[in-house]
Formats: sequence, structure tokens, C-alpha cells
Amino acid sequence: MIKKISHIGIAVNSIEDALKLYTEALGLELKGIEVVADQKVRIAIIPVGNTRIELLESTDPEGPIAKHIKNRGEGLHHVALEVEGIEGILEGLEKKEIPLVDKKPRIGAEGAKIAFLHPKATKALIELVEPTE
Amino acid sequence: MIKKISHIGIAVNSIEDALKLYTEALGLELKGIEVVADQKVRIAIIPVGNTRIELLESTDPEGPIAKHIKNRGEGLHHVALEVEGIEGILEGLEKKEIPLVDKKPRIGAEGAKIAFLHPKATKALIELVEPTE
Repeated sequence: MIKKISHIGIAVNSIEDALKLYTEALGLELKGIEVVADQKVRIAIIPVGNTRIELLESTDPEGPIAKHIKNRGEGLHHVALEVEGIEGILEGLEKKEIPLVDKKPRIGAEGAKIAFLHPKATKALIELVEPTE
Repeated sequence: MIKKISHIGIAVNSIEDALKLYTEALGLELKGIEVVADQKVRIAIIPVGNTRIELLESTDPEGPIAKHIKNRGEGLHHVALEVEGIEGILEGLEKKEIPLVDKKPRIGAEGAKIAFLHPKATKALIELVEPTE
């Protein structure tokens, strides 16, 4: 079951540079910055209503965010949907032959189970997220 | 004041084609399809939690969505933030020399007041939306 939009990820060259707009100019609040070593990314978390914007800065020139910026420039990177029962949803999608990046969930920020769908079917990069209790 | 994420716009070649994933595979519901002639776009509205995904299909090969797809392919196009007091926010941003696409709001889907910020500062295309009462 899809519950809500968990977050929107925006690939940026510099979190500090982009933050000026979101916090000083738009008046949003920075909740914190964390590093997800596995994905070679530093993440600034900015709550908006019951969802959040995440500014994504690569910690490595070979990381997925660095590659995205090299190919497409800074900009919207992915949308994450918060779900309940991520394993069952992935199985269902596989049965329907929906192309998946991750057939089984892996562990993302804050210990959540995450999986990416392949943009071939979704047209945009979509992540499923099931937070830990 | 920024209240929540109003919607996420995804540029697609064919709404009918993309809808299969969002409705049949992911189980989301299509609320409706509307045409915004001014922006040369057909919009499929898919509620997710208290926000929504909008699939954007160009109605004209010279429209902004057609141009976006030509330059960058199908994918995430913009994020819209629901605000209160859009005129005051735009004035404040202009005073801070934030680059704006629209200095004054214009009328978008469902009669809402809308304005786009320039991606130079926001890194991604951000729309402000103030719904009508």
C-alpha cells in the first residue's frame, strides 16, 4: 500500500549553496544533514508539510549523484513513495514484469527499507521506502 | 508561508502509457485528466497522501513539456509548493534578488494562482501554487 510521498530528492553540487534558497529565501527549516556512505551521498533534510525535500550532494566523483549531475545537470533526481509491505509490492511488480532496479529491499537512510523502480516504466526515478517502526 | 507539497509534475510522452504503471501496477487512483490550454499540456491527476503526482503530456510539439522531453527526455519536470500569500512571497524573493520566471502570479489549473521560480537558484524547477478558496 502506498501511503504518501516520503520525499523528493534534488541533486545539487553544493548543499550549502542550495540551502540558501530553501531556508533563507523560502523560510523552510533544515532538519539535519546526514551522510549515506553506501550511496556516496550527503543529504540535507528539509521538511515540507508531511513530506520533505532532500538536497543530495555527492561525496565521491564516481557516485550516482555525481554521475547524474554530469549527465543531466543539477535538478530533480527521484521521488520516494512511503509504502507498507515493501517486499509484497516488489513481488507484485515483478509478476507484472515491471522493470526494477532492486528486486529486494536494501537499507537506506535512517534504517528504512528502500528499493528503486526502473525509470523505463515509471518515466521518472521512483523509490519505495518503508520506514522502520 | 509554505504549507505543503502541492504536486510533482512528471513529463511523459503518453499519459495512457505512463498511467498503466501508476494505476494498474502501483494501485494509485486516477482522479481525472484536464487540459490547460495556456500551457499546452494535458494533465493526469493522481492523488498520493495529501499531495499528488501529475503526469504532463504536451498537446503541442512547441509546448514547454514537448521542449523539456526533447532536451532531457521523459522524467521529473517540477515540484509545486502550496503557499499562502503568493504575492507577498514573490515580492520578498524579488527583494532578495532570487531569479523568478513569473514576478506576478498567473492563473493555472483549477483557477489557482501560480508562479515559477527560476532553477538557477532553486536547482530544480519550483512552482508556487495558491489554490482558490
